[in-house]
Amino acid sequence: MRVLIIGGSDAGISAALRIREPDRSVPVQVALADDYPNWSICGLPYYLGGETPDWRTLAHRTEFEGIELLRGHRIASIDVAGRLASAVKADGATLPLPYDRLVLATGAAPVRPDLPGMELPGVHLLHTMGDALGLGKTLESQPHPRSAVVVGAGYIGLEMAEALVHRGLRVTLVSRTDPVFPTVDPVFGQAIEAEMHRNGVRIRAGCAVATIERTAGTLAVCGQNDLREEGDLVLVAVGTRPETHLAREAGLKLGARDAIVTDRAMRTGVPDVFAAGDCVETWHRVLERNVWLPLGTTAHKQGRVAGETVLGGGRLFPGCVGTQVLKLFDIVAARTGLLEAEARKAGFEPLTVETAAWDHKAYYPGARQLRIRVTGDRRGGRLLGAQILGPWQSEIAKRIDIFATALFHGMTVDAVSDLDLSYAPPFASPWDPVQIATQAWSAAKREACA
Amino acid sequence: MRVLIIGGSDAGISAALRIREPDRSVPVQVALADDYPNWSICGLPYYLGGETPDWRTLAHRTEFEGIELLRGHRIASIDVAGRLASAVKADGATLPLPYDRLVLATGAAPVRPDLPGMELPGVHLLHTMGDALGLGKTLESQPHPRSAVVVGAGYIGLEMAEALVHRGLRVTLVSRTDPVFPTVDPVFGQAIEAEMHRNGVRIRAGCAVATIERTAGTLAVCGQNDLREEGDLVLVAVGTRPETHLAREAGLKLGARDAIVTDRAMRTGVPDVFAAGDCVETWHRVLERNVWLPLGTTAHKQGRVAGETVLGGGRLFPGCVGTQVLKLFDIVAARTGLLEAEARKAGFEPLTVETAAWDHKAYYPGARQLRIRVTGDRRGGRLLGAQILGPWQSEIAKRIDIFATALFHGMTVDAVSDLDLSYAPPFASPWDPVQIATQAWSAAKREACA
Repeated sequence: MRVLIIGGSDAGISAALRIREPDRSVPVQVALADDYPNWSICGLPYYLGGETPDWRTLAHRTEFEGIELLRGHRIASIDVAGRLASAVKADGATLPLPYDRLVLATGAAPVRPDLPGMELPGVHLLHTMGDALGLGKTLESQPHPRSAVVVGAGYIGLEMAEALVHRGLRVTLVSRTDPVFPTVDPVFGQAIEAEMHRNGVRIRAGCAVATIERTAGTLAVCGQNDLREEGDLVLVAVGTRPETHLAREAGLKLGARDAIVTDRAMRTGVPDVFAAGDCVETWHRVLERNVWLPLGTTAHKQGRVAGETVLGGGRLFPGCVGTQVLKLFDIVAARTGLLEAEARKAGFEPLTVETAAWDHKAYYPGARQLRIRVTGDRRGGRLLGAQILGPWQSEIAKRIDIFATALFHGMTVDAVSDLDLSYAPPFASPWDPVQIATQAWSAAKREACA
Repeated sequence: MRVLIIGGSDAGISAALRIREPDRSVPVQVALADDYPNWSICGLPYYLGGETPDWRTLAHRTEFEGIELLRGHRIASIDVAGRLASAVKADGATLPLPYDRLVLATGAAPVRPDLPGMELPGVHLLHTMGDALGLGKTLESQPHPRSAVVVGAGYIGLEMAEALVHRGLRVTLVSRTDPVFPTVDPVFGQAIEAEMHRNGVRIRAGCAVATIERTAGTLAVCGQNDLREEGDLVLVAVGTRPETHLAREAGLKLGARDAIVTDRAMRTGVPDVFAAGDCVETWHRVLERNVWLPLGTTAHKQGRVAGETVLGGGRLFPGCVGTQVLKLFDIVAARTGLLEAEARKAGFEPLTVETAAWDHKAYYPGARQLRIRVTGDRRGGRLLGAQILGPWQSEIAKRIDIFATALFHGMTVDAVSDLDLSYAPPFASPWDPVQIATQAWSAAKREACA
């Protein structure tokens, strides 16, 4: 059995590794357009910010245990009836790649907004290792750029704003949304803005960009609300889209945002063609429908399931609950499940209650306050989502995972207070902050219903 | 309805607060033998070690919202037929306390071993605030004690050894078990011993104490294996036992270790008498039977359930899974569920696999290795327990809670890899260390069964 995987990032490599687990003799080819298999794209801001000095350490792995990596092989077309892909190599030569089973793991690509000025030197997108190394070169060029305008206030935009501050640049962040980072509720977005201000980032929120102009040696980002922010370089990070043109041409069914539709075994509906990762729709356990939510955690899981399905196994992708975490300067923001607005849109009757709680007993040194927002359904009390914001090093990332595990099991908010969570004074209170928050929600619901 | 609660620590106060939640006019009396309602006993080592300078901050709460606190009221007897308790006050006067509903929350007391020398000046037990203030006085007396022998290597023994090191004393720890801290597997106990050695603690493991002697101004702890360790003070912390003599005299049914037997609504079987906290048996969700496992987290939960039952509500104590965490100098050890030996004794066929994993992506500064031990059942693959050991500030406490939440739901080890856990390079890997460990367990089980 010949297996071909298109895409050498998280989902593709996870599928390849899974396929070879039971039988190392199964030949697996992984075609990747660039030279960076299984790279940690999430690490790029830390390389560019200087915290990770050597970009080579960003590789999730460097050993591929018998997997045939076809580096620099761009796939030009797929003939699903003939079970044949066609690759174009760097030198322009084409190579036919026959397969018995195909896994599409083509990922996502940054959205390149259709703006005048996008093509100017000094305007960067950030997605591939090539992009990162290009921006790295710009940052090291003489004279060093002293200022930057970052367009976009999602994960990459925020993390890159921090990275450029670390590099000593004067940074302006331009956000279409007001406040920044709509991944969390606006009150948390405002706290994130405050943290950025404290670290010298200028923020223009609620501004759509219309043009990027070059004048007198600098670039200017211009648009709504008298927006005109100048910088020596501009980084555009306004989101990503699924990379599915091959899938479309091959006749695969596309869904939300043109992501590939699969079942939970990662089958595309076309015989012997599977797909996984940022290019596919993802089953959401709370919404109980497919969404497009590209995350590395999900890509790894879907890749493994696709690999297992290639082998004929019966594992299903269990679905995600939308767990995410961001570190920004000295604060952390995390979420899982649905925001209040998302829950309402999905037909729930959400109630959201915010609670402040110490991360550990206040009498033990170093206690800091966490803000925890719990969203539950007024009808039946089901937990729908949670958000936590607080200082770095207060176990926020793994506290959101308690909520994520509760959501995975469809718990009520009230039942979260039943969990047997760890306690010692340096770590928590006898009721963990998570449970102080769920109890506050339960009390608020009682009052609301009384 | 007159409600009387005997015991003013975690369970008693939790019950009182719960009873008054729906109706603040319900009169609730809480009789406590000392003057320290709802004190955080777990904080004593930090007060004595100097990290928590003011002992008054150890109170979980100082406002009791209309609860009638009867401080310094020792209950001498209970007449359950006549619904009458009899209190003895500090001045020796007795006070009849009639009730309609009674909650026993009498807690646990330190085991006072029957050793020659226990009565010597300079030999301390540690349980109540009075004990702690007494030891605090000894530490401040002139000349300051310069050395200490701690007998017992459970939580209190280890934490107090650290506290006394912080106070500048030369500390010897005498442990009956070898290695110390049988709450975790012996390999983790050995790592804990190494951390104590690094911090200058002398350890005598596998030694039973026979006598404590006073010679030439110092105390000597003597026993098995040529044990003779000298110190200016001796602290004996060899465990606790349920404080249930009142319950016994009142005719309540006692179970494991003479703890009070209750159902999961915290009813004792005697009409209108309820019990909660360290004095009762606890439902264990993995063992599916009652055990005696005194923990503050459980006491709070059981107290709330008892309060709800007093009101006629239908909530059941959900049971514990044995989640615990210890910080010792710069390391953290946590566990939940069963150790391998406990699982075998309970009739499971346990397989335990230890995995080393970085707490976050190694390319992001500050990554440290965690040791994670996963115990699962070879038959069916059910998760039975987990232990994590690693450096302070690597989210171990809340990582064990992911396992605890999985155990609460009876997940298989394999299914833990399905959880949608948070990831960003400063916090985890795309597979959290928890999942790297569960995958390693699954692979080991496949090999063991192949």
